[in-house]
Amino acid sequence: MTSTSVARPDEVRRYNRTTLLRVLHVGGPLTRAALATELGLNRSTIKALVDGLAEAGMVEERVPRPGRGAGRPSLLVLPQPQAAVVLAVDVQVEHVAIALVGLGGQILGRNSWNLHGRTREPDEVITHILESTAVLAGDLGVRPMAAGISVPGVVRRSDGLVREAPNLRWSDVTLGDRLGAVLRIPVLVGNDAELGALAEHLRGAARGAADAVYVSADVGVGGGVVAQGSSLRGAAGYVGEIGHMVIRPGGRGCYCGNQGCWETEVGEAALCRALGLAEDSSRGALVVELRKLAEDPTAALERLGEFAEWLTLGLVNVVNLLGPELVVLGDLFTALPDTLVDWVGEQVRQRSLVSRAVGGVRVEPSALGVDVKLLGAAEVAFEGVLDTV
Amino acid sequence: MTSTSVARPDEVRRYNRTTLLRVLHVGGPLTRAALATELGLNRSTIKALVDGLAEAGMVEERVPRPGRGAGRPSLLVLPQPQAAVVLAVDVQVEHVAIALVGLGGQILGRNSWNLHGRTREPDEVITHILESTAVLAGDLGVRPMAAGISVPGVVRRSDGLVREAPNLRWSDVTLGDRLGAVLRIPVLVGNDAELGALAEHLRGAARGAADAVYVSADVGVGGGVVAQGSSLRGAAGYVGEIGHMVIRPGGRGCYCGNQGCWETEVGEAALCRALGLAEDSSRGALVVELRKLAEDPTAALERLGEFAEWLTLGLVNVVNLLGPELVVLGDLFTALPDTLVDWVGEQVRQRSLVSRAVGGVRVEPSALGVDVKLLGAAEVAFEGVLDTV
Repeated sequence: MTSTSVARPDEVRRYNRTTLLRVLHVGGPLTRAALATELGLNRSTIKALVDGLAEAGMVEERVPRPGRGAGRPSLLVLPQPQAAVVLAVDVQVEHVAIALVGLGGQILGRNSWNLHGRTREPDEVITHILESTAVLAGDLGVRPMAAGISVPGVVRRSDGLVREAPNLRWSDVTLGDRLGAVLRIPVLVGNDAELGALAEHLRGAARGAADAVYVSADVGVGGGVVAQGSSLRGAAGYVGEIGHMVIRPGGRGCYCGNQGCWETEVGEAALCRALGLAEDSSRGALVVELRKLAEDPTAALERLGEFAEWLTLGLVNVVNLLGPELVVLGDLFTALPDTLVDWVGEQVRQRSLVSRAVGGVRVEPSALGVDVKLLGAAEVAFEGVLDTV
Repeated sequence: MTSTSVARPDEVRRYNRTTLLRVLHVGGPLTRAALATELGLNRSTIKALVDGLAEAGMVEERVPRPGRGAGRPSLLVLPQPQAAVVLAVDVQVEHVAIALVGLGGQILGRNSWNLHGRTREPDEVITHILESTAVLAGDLGVRPMAAGISVPGVVRRSDGLVREAPNLRWSDVTLGDRLGAVLRIPVLVGNDAELGALAEHLRGAARGAADAVYVSADVGVGGGVVAQGSSLRGAAGYVGEIGHMVIRPGGRGCYCGNQGCWETEVGEAALCRALGLAEDSSRGALVVELRKLAEDPTAALERLGEFAEWLTLGLVNVVNLLGPELVVLGDLFTALPDTLVDWVGEQVRQRSLVSRAVGGVRVEPSALGVDVKLLGAAEVAFEGVLDTV
């Protein structure tokens, strides 16, 4: 139940200011005229808001290049990246990437390092993140206002507890609290696939799609869901674990205790097996093999036929359960040959009742490449920041 | 992007009035003091709102029975059922039920009839609904302000098109438009499981649960999802088809074109097979058999062991994908022996990664019995009505 009270003029002004900043942050530079249309406000209100933001150094105005239209061109409003900076961290199984991301979503600087052996211990990772952040912020001369952290595991949003990140061998790591205590800024921890979905929704292939699912394969398989324009978060902030959908009862054992999870059929190890590589082959070797295969579409479908069938079956289930208009395939799946992705998309459209009803779900590779989770982590951090600047 | 404008005092008053009415409609009679707390408004504002609603005949005030507290008791505010009435229709495979439902959710009158042969044709069903509604409304001396229709199929919310209702053998039936044209009131058509989930969320076992899944078995198996307090609707308003999750690849063929759908393993026919009954046994015979079985818990688990395993597997997937705090089992599933439901719940908790993370998902039978979809249909109709009365 939401309580209600009369909106005071200063509250309305603040709300409009945040909305305008969010539009610029996600949509990029826009003219005053476009902002007026987008926000449904008149031009004098927009002028006052933009003037206020320019005075605070949050935006800059420029005369756009002359176009074909007649009359005086509307001034172009640009977000100022340095005016609000957040820290984004992407903890993966093999490495950690950090970045400082400015207003508008621009990566201002980045750093990354590999993980192996004891450097994967939570203590070591946390120390390394703090040290690298201090160096990077010092080099750039900025101070992050909040941090977003992507972790491949089951995460509680309220306090950033990493409940279980099996491929990292982490359990009950109070990551959010520990980073927050040192950084002294809000720290938001999210499941990697959830953040991937957010990034694709705001800046990638799922832009403008109100209902989309992001499915990514790394060592594990994860999924994030955008429903009616918002991230689905599950009870207590635990996002769903799409990779642990049982799809082949009695199949290969999974660490989660079940047999025949989707992850065991379409994760990195499964892809290695399908290609005749050792299950612990390096990511590089796997990608090289996939690129070779892409040159021979017929061979690709033949060698990866069974893999493609399991990928299809899982996607049919996802589509029948969630009814998205678009499925975005991320991470390792972006290295799959185009022919194979096309075949899978066609199969999902034919074999899903819901796809037939909505007139055909789209299945597309991620548009954001390796930065997708870093960008998603930045966006959860920006959520709070844009409300307060 | 939502546009914004300054809220005018009369808009605020209207918003508060609707909110108050909705609280009474869903929560039942409340004292003025409780309303003030619930809405976060002061008592004089509540008094003005209640006075206005009483004058319009929407609510009535009564002195509550004397309690233990000292001082003058706060007046009890009761919604007046006759003040706003909607039509609710539940189209099932075997029969149709209609009801007129008053403000507060009370069923004021009802009617139902069986379907077989040509009486299941859309034309016949629509004619029968219209005739029965006229008779019922005449008898009760009320006029419905909107209608909600529950259909076991894939439904487009925007215009009430029934895209595919395979067990009714309906496809592309413009049900909403056709009923609306005659009734001349807004007609909202929803998928039966979606409406079941809504009813359980507002008035049943999932009350107060922000993230819940309702799974029901009739001839088919359907599911509805409440996420962060709202119904999940999928792209273009098509809700997901949980029953067509493939759970046993290579299994029994399903009319949707796949093999081994969850519906083919745990739907009504599967339950008949598990009990050694003919697949087309009557619902009555099936329920009698289940009641007998309930008296011998050990035999129940033995005879329905494989059925319970498929029910478990599907629920593990649903929980891992959607991360609900509660799964409500509806329709035919409410007839399952308690021992079996308890066993399934325990298995789901042990075997779902997400359940282990959230500290144990609950699996419970529906609390609303056979009226659940009728009540859900009434609620979608009330959504618009409460905004305008």
